Amino acid sequence: MRVALTGGSSGIGAEVARKLAELGHEVTAFDISEPQVQVSRWIKADLSDPGSIQAATDAVSGKYDAIINNAGLPPRDGLEEVILKVNWFGLRRFMDGMLDKLEPGAAIVNTASRAGAMWRDNLEEVKALMSLQPDELPAFISERGIDATRAYNLSKEAVIVMTMAETENLIARNLRMNSVSPAAVSTGILKDFAAAFGDRMVKNVARAGRPGLPEEVAEVIVFLASPESGWIKGQDVTIDGGMSAMAMSEALEISGT
Amino acid sequence: MRVALTGGSSGIGAEVARKLAELGHEVTAFDISEPQVQVSRWIKADLSDPGSIQAATDAVSGKYDAIINNAGLPPRDGLEEVILKVNWFGLRRFMDGMLDKLEPGAAIVNTASRAGAMWRDNLEEVKALMSLQPDELPAFISERGIDATRAYNLSKEAVIVMTMAETENLIARNLRMNSVSPAAVSTGILKDFAAAFGDRMVKNVARAGRPGLPEEVAEVIVFLASPESGWIKGQDVTIDGGMSAMAMSEALEISGT
Repeated sequence: MRVALTGGSSGIGAEVARKLAELGHEVTAFDISEPQVQVSRWIKADLSDPGSIQAATDAVSGKYDAIINNAGLPPRDGLEEVILKVNWFGLRRFMDGMLDKLEPGAAIVNTASRAGAMWRDNLEEVKALMSLQPDELPAFISERGIDATRAYNLSKEAVIVMTMAETENLIARNLRMNSVSPAAVSTGILKDFAAAFGDRMVKNVARAGRPGLPEEVAEVIVFLASPESGWIKGQDVTIDGGMSAMAMSEALEISGT
Repeated sequence: MRVALTGGSSGIGAEVARKLAELGHEVTAFDISEPQVQVSRWIKADLSDPGSIQAATDAVSGKYDAIINNAGLPPRDGLEEVILKVNWFGLRRFMDGMLDKLEPGAAIVNTASRAGAMWRDNLEEVKALMSLQPDELPAFISERGIDATRAYNLSKEAVIVMTMAETENLIARNLRMNSVSPAAVSTGILKDFAAAFGDRMVKNVARAGRPGLPEEVAEVIVFLASPESGWIKGQDVTIDGGMSAMAMSEALEISGT
């Protein structure tokens, strides 16, 4: 396969690049930093900057078999605007810019997050974000009092909803899209999530036994990018060592029979 | 891997057996009929009969890396009792009988169905079924007026709920379990689903472009049985060519942006 990957220089994305290379696939990595793992080509791209995204997508030619939208910023105080720019607007713009460069039957995989699991409860705000122009973002953030944690969660809610909402359009183009929702993965940004989510994360990790490993998430991303998963469309796959299944079982009083 | 598979003689199960064999895995098939595809061993088993299940699980020795609970009866008029016996009680009994024969880290994969997607709305009835003794089943069916279609849906709701509910118990034993929910797959029993679900199924298949293929479902089952999916626990993965994503997008008015 020929794969376009954002965020290939660290964390989950670096493991995706490594796994794809191991399987003999060609990887074009779009990242602000140069990947440490071997990729076929690195294109420097800043996903918070529309001009940089345009230049990056213009820089590639030929067709791709998959896009993996993995780049994203974690919840970190003061970053609310850039989180929404990169995790939502940048992802959407990059994907739209690459759509015409996809082979028939190609797959798109988005890295969402378990932090986006409440998308249904927050659907009004998600729809508002999805219909927003980028220049309206500062007013949207201040009017709604969106802090960095809410910005992060909202960006991931929007990715999950968009993944579902675009299913019919993509089928009409012989394309498909899915997302993954990892929780508490042991990467360089785990401390940001610990600061943002506190005791809830500590409890979840304790129940699962440990945080997830980036390579465990990468395996699922690669599967969803591959023809073997071809009939999975518009779905979000949770990869969390059972954290949400256990929390849900407890809430619904169905644990252990 | 060494895999215990129920329902390997037809439909999705036959494709699972074929795919596992192709990958060099050892398959023990538990089925009432002899598999047409090559398996390492066939053990005749009737999942509606506790004695037959006991004899079948007693007949194998050594440890397994995965159990694939795939056998199931479709909705067909008059079969309500045997549907619940095979799809729920039989699955549960077979799995419980095999638990001590699993290697550390082994995976269990259950074939549920999109027909079980309403498990949350029907949770009271699902819990009632899950706490039922098999000899109470006829009274349960008649008191609640359960027909074959409801029996089928209920059995699959229970499989999805059990898959989630057992997560913590299984983690304590270093095991994991997930389910798949296919919709409208072109196997020998597709006509039963067409009769049971009528226009809704026709509409879904039209939107997806075609029914699913058994091998498309088998690929995902094999992935969930394999170490590559090791951090996915207690989840249900929908495999439906986008049918439910499109229906959900329509219901929530989020289609196409």
